[in-house]
Amino acid sequence: MTVYYEDLEVGRRWRSRAFKVERKEMVAFARQWDPRPFHVDDRAAAETVYGELIASGAFTMAVFLKLGNEAAPDWAMVAALGWDQVRFTGPVKAGDELTAECQVIAKQESKRRPGHGIVRSRQRLINQRGESVLVFTSPLLMEMRKI
Amino acid sequence: MTVYYEDLEVGRRWRSRAFKVERKEMVAFARQWDPRPFHVDDRAAAETVYGELIASGAFTMAVFLKLGNEAAPDWAMVAALGWDQVRFTGPVKAGDELTAECQVIAKQESKRRPGHGIVRSRQRLINQRGESVLVFTSPLLMEMRKI
Repeated sequence: MTVYYEDLEVGRRWRSRAFKVERKEMVAFARQWDPRPFHVDDRAAAETVYGELIASGAFTMAVFLKLGNEAAPDWAMVAALGWDQVRFTGPVKAGDELTAECQVIAKQESKRRPGHGIVRSRQRLINQRGESVLVFTSPLLMEMRKI
Repeated sequence: MTVYYEDLEVGRRWRSRAFKVERKEMVAFARQWDPRPFHVDDRAAAETVYGELIASGAFTMAVFLKLGNEAAPDWAMVAALGWDQVRFTGPVKAGDELTAECQVIAKQESKRRPGHGIVRSRQRLINQRGESVLVFTSPLLMEMRKI
């Protein structure tokens, strides 16, 4: 059942499965895209406040998108217009288990694109201890039902 | 030469090399992290306004981070605190050549962390036609010089 703009009420929440952060995958991502010492070099990471390797923010966002897509596979989404106030509120480390949580916080019909609306949602990723590691809001361009 | 908080003046700009978007790499990324039809399925993408596959926003951000890291390898950066008002201002397609541009727009000493400061910069990624495909601002936590 496709979920259209009209089907999403403000306040609606959902939650994904848990995703286990594998060290190999986390480090391979950072080597390719964001090879800062604290993402790829155990020795350099040991000297930081975290004491061990932490994930690249882009990896953390990629995990969020993966879980968000799985939790909302049938949304009539045209595009994520952007991400607002993205904050990496805690470190992500190998072995962590991350869960995505979303809540619709506002809706607005699109003036520019008839038949479409913008759904704003608050998103976060929490670890196995219930700590937020990523928070942001996001305007999604959605299709309305064709009558 | 390490670049510290004090070394970065407001207004300073820099620019990266160009990065060629390879179809295989772009689609493999989307399959793993953001497998929406318009990122991974040629037929579905042909029916969108873009007419062909477009990159996941997380891929576009990963390309930005790669280029940004290369252009500023010796910054005494502790962490990117977040990303603000991220907007995907145009599609990224296979074959595109992307260049990162950054400009320091504000600086502030950290009250919470003596010896550190926050440098805010405006970032964008432009394609081979000079069109922006990603814009955002970012507060970076930087070390000050040890005297």
